[in-house]
Amino acid sequence: MLKLFWADEGGLPANDRGLAYGDGLFETIRMRGRQGVLLGRHVDRLTRDAGRLGIPVSRSELDNICRAAAERYSDAFKGDGWILKLMLTRGAGGRGYQPDAKSQPHVLASASALPAQPDSAGVCVDFSPVTLTVNPFLAGMKTLNRLEQVMAARDIQGDRFEMLMLDGHGHLIEGTRTNLLARFDSGWVSPPKASLAVAGVLREWILERLRTQGDSVEERHLAASDVSGPKCRGLFLLNSVLGVVPVSQVADHQLPVYGGLATIFDPNDLLE
Amino acid sequence: MLKLFWADEGGLPANDRGLAYGDGLFETIRMRGRQGVLLGRHVDRLTRDAGRLGIPVSRSELDNICRAAAERYSDAFKGDGWILKLMLTRGAGGRGYQPDAKSQPHVLASASALPAQPDSAGVCVDFSPVTLTVNPFLAGMKTLNRLEQVMAARDIQGDRFEMLMLDGHGHLIEGTRTNLLARFDSGWVSPPKASLAVAGVLREWILERLRTQGDSVEERHLAASDVSGPKCRGLFLLNSVLGVVPVSQVADHQLPVYGGLATIFDPNDLLE
Repeated sequence: MLKLFWADEGGLPANDRGLAYGDGLFETIRMRGRQGVLLGRHVDRLTRDAGRLGIPVSRSELDNICRAAAERYSDAFKGDGWILKLMLTRGAGGRGYQPDAKSQPHVLASASALPAQPDSAGVCVDFSPVTLTVNPFLAGMKTLNRLEQVMAARDIQGDRFEMLMLDGHGHLIEGTRTNLLARFDSGWVSPPKASLAVAGVLREWILERLRTQGDSVEERHLAASDVSGPKCRGLFLLNSVLGVVPVSQVADHQLPVYGGLATIFDPNDLLE
Repeated sequence: MLKLFWADEGGLPANDRGLAYGDGLFETIRMRGRQGVLLGRHVDRLTRDAGRLGIPVSRSELDNICRAAAERYSDAFKGDGWILKLMLTRGAGGRGYQPDAKSQPHVLASASALPAQPDSAGVCVDFSPVTLTVNPFLAGMKTLNRLEQVMAARDIQGDRFEMLMLDGHGHLIEGTRTNLLARFDSGWVSPPKASLAVAGVLREWILERLRTQGDSVEERHLAASDVSGPKCRGLFLLNSVLGVVPVSQVADHQLPVYGGLATIFDPNDLLE
């Protein structure tokens, strides 16, 4: 049985394992009124990944929390977009790292204003010197262990909208807060799901949508030179809050802004 | 300027980056009365690693916190040993992963009873199926990103005192909460500092002490078979709270309990 905390009433208890070890997960959901963009997929991911971590929560408990949070917070944003953030932790207790099998999971819910939307004419990105290490046991999960992304995000300054991260093998994996989708003459390419630190819900939706409309979509490794070389016809950052963000410059290399994705994602069409 | 929170008065604010991203560090210090075992080394490590993360704290601020915590908590333990835990976070604020350069760091201090001390006749350990991934930017630091250790520690059950973790190259690195020191005919071996997820203060002290007394100490990679094969004369787990813990069994392999380290570490001699 989950215990729900509201951020506007205070934080989690001092002995919460989310703080102590990052022993938990989070979701950041773009809302409009009481509906959320791809809300079902966010709750699906949170339910599934809680299962992978062995945190006992049910889909219906999380659904109820989303409904309660939408009711609590939506009026304050007067019908405009807002962000619902849910942090799910294993709760308190255990002996050091070792969890207590009986611990009661905690959810901390908070709301914030929608961030400024990125330039639809394209953004500048660069490569991070911070390596992304992806543990196979944790791959794809939006866990509370995000210090690599924090370290990489320190270089997001000036015109730089995002830093792209490579793994220890030199594979381009993702941005600090975005997944990647690149366009080549042969079709679309996105790094393989199993290689991702965070497997985003928008990435999943976009790949399905492209495949449904008959586009060629490959999930395979990319090198930094693949997206900063002449063969790349377009590069997009994917994030369910920010949407599909075209990249116009990677490091010193100008990229064409491929038009074919411009209208595929309209958050208002995906409210649930 | 740090802001200090006492765990017995409540937790950190809901928007603390320690909870959100594991954006911080911790120390667990064995205390007796108002003194701490290897206290100076703990505070050194916390100061140095805060610098690596770009969290602005000074050694003297942390010294003051240790003194205040010792004053606040020591009486409750009536002169017995106790544990002081300090969590240092980057504080609140920032835009998502990106830290706010002006954020005020937070420290959460808490006290707990000394855990039961392990069997000096030797403990059983096994190899964890959870790979340890060590990012070069974060290597050695006791950060709040410890989900790999949590996942591995779930197998600490029954007679198993610790799970030993290997990196993606098959190198034996450390236990979930302990560093490793192995004895061979040629001398002592401990995995290289740069390969460690957490570079423990007791490990550092022991290696210095062994070198000072003229022992051969190598820092080099070990394979699982090195410590579960016939050439291993002894294996020790090192943790500044638990001390020097001899291993008598690795998986199905019995290990001799090497006597030469039995008396090298007496926590009461190292109170500062």
